[in-house]
Amino acid sequence: MTAPGRLIGASLGPGDPGWITRRAWEVLHGAGRWAYPVRAAGERSYALGIVERAGLQAPGDALELIFPMTHDPQELAQAWARAAAAVAESLRSGRDVVFLVEGDASTYATFGHLARTVEAELPAVEVETIPGVASFVAAPARLGWPLATQHETVVVLPGGYGLETVQRLLPEMDTLVLLKVRPLLDPLIDLLEERDLLASSALVERAGSPDERVVTDLRTLRGGAGVHYLSLLLVRNPHRRWARTAGGEG
Amino acid sequence: MTAPGRLIGASLGPGDPGWITRRAWEVLHGAGRWAYPVRAAGERSYALGIVERAGLQAPGDALELIFPMTHDPQELAQAWARAAAAVAESLRSGRDVVFLVEGDASTYATFGHLARTVEAELPAVEVETIPGVASFVAAPARLGWPLATQHETVVVLPGGYGLETVQRLLPEMDTLVLLKVRPLLDPLIDLLEERDLLASSALVERAGSPDERVVTDLRTLRGGAGVHYLSLLLVRNPHRRWARTAGGEG
Repeated sequence: MTAPGRLIGASLGPGDPGWITRRAWEVLHGAGRWAYPVRAAGERSYALGIVERAGLQAPGDALELIFPMTHDPQELAQAWARAAAAVAESLRSGRDVVFLVEGDASTYATFGHLARTVEAELPAVEVETIPGVASFVAAPARLGWPLATQHETVVVLPGGYGLETVQRLLPEMDTLVLLKVRPLLDPLIDLLEERDLLASSALVERAGSPDERVVTDLRTLRGGAGVHYLSLLLVRNPHRRWARTAGGEG
Repeated sequence: MTAPGRLIGASLGPGDPGWITRRAWEVLHGAGRWAYPVRAAGERSYALGIVERAGLQAPGDALELIFPMTHDPQELAQAWARAAAAVAESLRSGRDVVFLVEGDASTYATFGHLARTVEAELPAVEVETIPGVASFVAAPARLGWPLATQHETVVVLPGGYGLETVQRLLPEMDTLVLLKVRPLLDPLIDLLEERDLLASSALVERAGSPDERVVTDLRTLRGGAGVHYLSLLLVRNPHRRWARTAGGEG
């Protein structure tokens, strides 16, 4: 019996092909079979696009894995089962699979769930997660802002939180990273204006990609028109009233 | 008058030379003058060590910048002034300066403060921040855990917070990243045990370096002996009682 191939999650960063790590670059040039996510058959893959901008082409035998944007549990389960089966088949043949991940593979990514699904079928499989540049680490770099300095606190809130969560956490956080802000944008802008935080807040969309957008005057976004799904709001809070208590080390 | 050189913050990730990005690799091979931080003259630089493990040597004219581990404000101010002056001198001559940063340059790093200090002296200077793999993104990759899945919240707490901050934030966070845990380690372990969170918590030290240590049974760390300054505690909280409210998008 052939030993199964390794499943490798290759983080590619949020958009700039220069932010691909050397290790991810190495596995992209190795013998592993590429796999990349798309939302529908034949659609463009954001992750694959990053690699293409680095000058690489998907090999002819690359696996296109469909992860539909749906809340229908049956449709989702079927898609996941198909994707995991295709990956497991390659692994069973002894060949590594290199799954392309936009951003970082441990951070709001499908890779972890894919790996667990494949492991359930193929317990002997070895998984390597290559960490990468997370979008909320790239955004402050593009702005020239810190994500956090020495004693600062950071919270990352995904989509689906309410405004009251932001209000409640604001007093003790130096930095708030708000993902998928589109549905909440207008009340968020109102809140930031009220708290005198507009000057220290910015929207960053698809950092490092050719479609990157950095908006530092959030008032221009009222109405939410044109704000992309892959956008985040970075809020630096100079009014934080969280106090140091225990003896820190420096 | 020569145009000043560019100041480049080259993030190197937390320890594995494979986690250096292609862009950072490119500037390391460019004509810019390297600068790297040490705690005392002639001491080893953690950032430089990462690059050396990648097979590169510091050029003979590389700048060693001393950032002493002290709370003495006068000593600190002098060290910062000396470091900024040395960097500014190179930039004024028209040469780029490549500042080596362990982890990510926007995240608990000295680069931002250095850049602002240099900009105060040399307002025309162009700054490039190359984002990198943050330690709290590498740690979950090494564990094979997610930092966050789809609707999950993450908080990062630096050193100097109290136990009551952890207790207060725990109920609404899916993941807590606790930095510089050494002074609080025993009460933290007690708290995690009490909340039934030991099985979903781990300590990661110097991820990706030859001295990496991953400890999943935190009880073995009681007493705190041998826990390194560059360690973090990752707590995954399956008991989170934070509820989704607004209509999320995905």
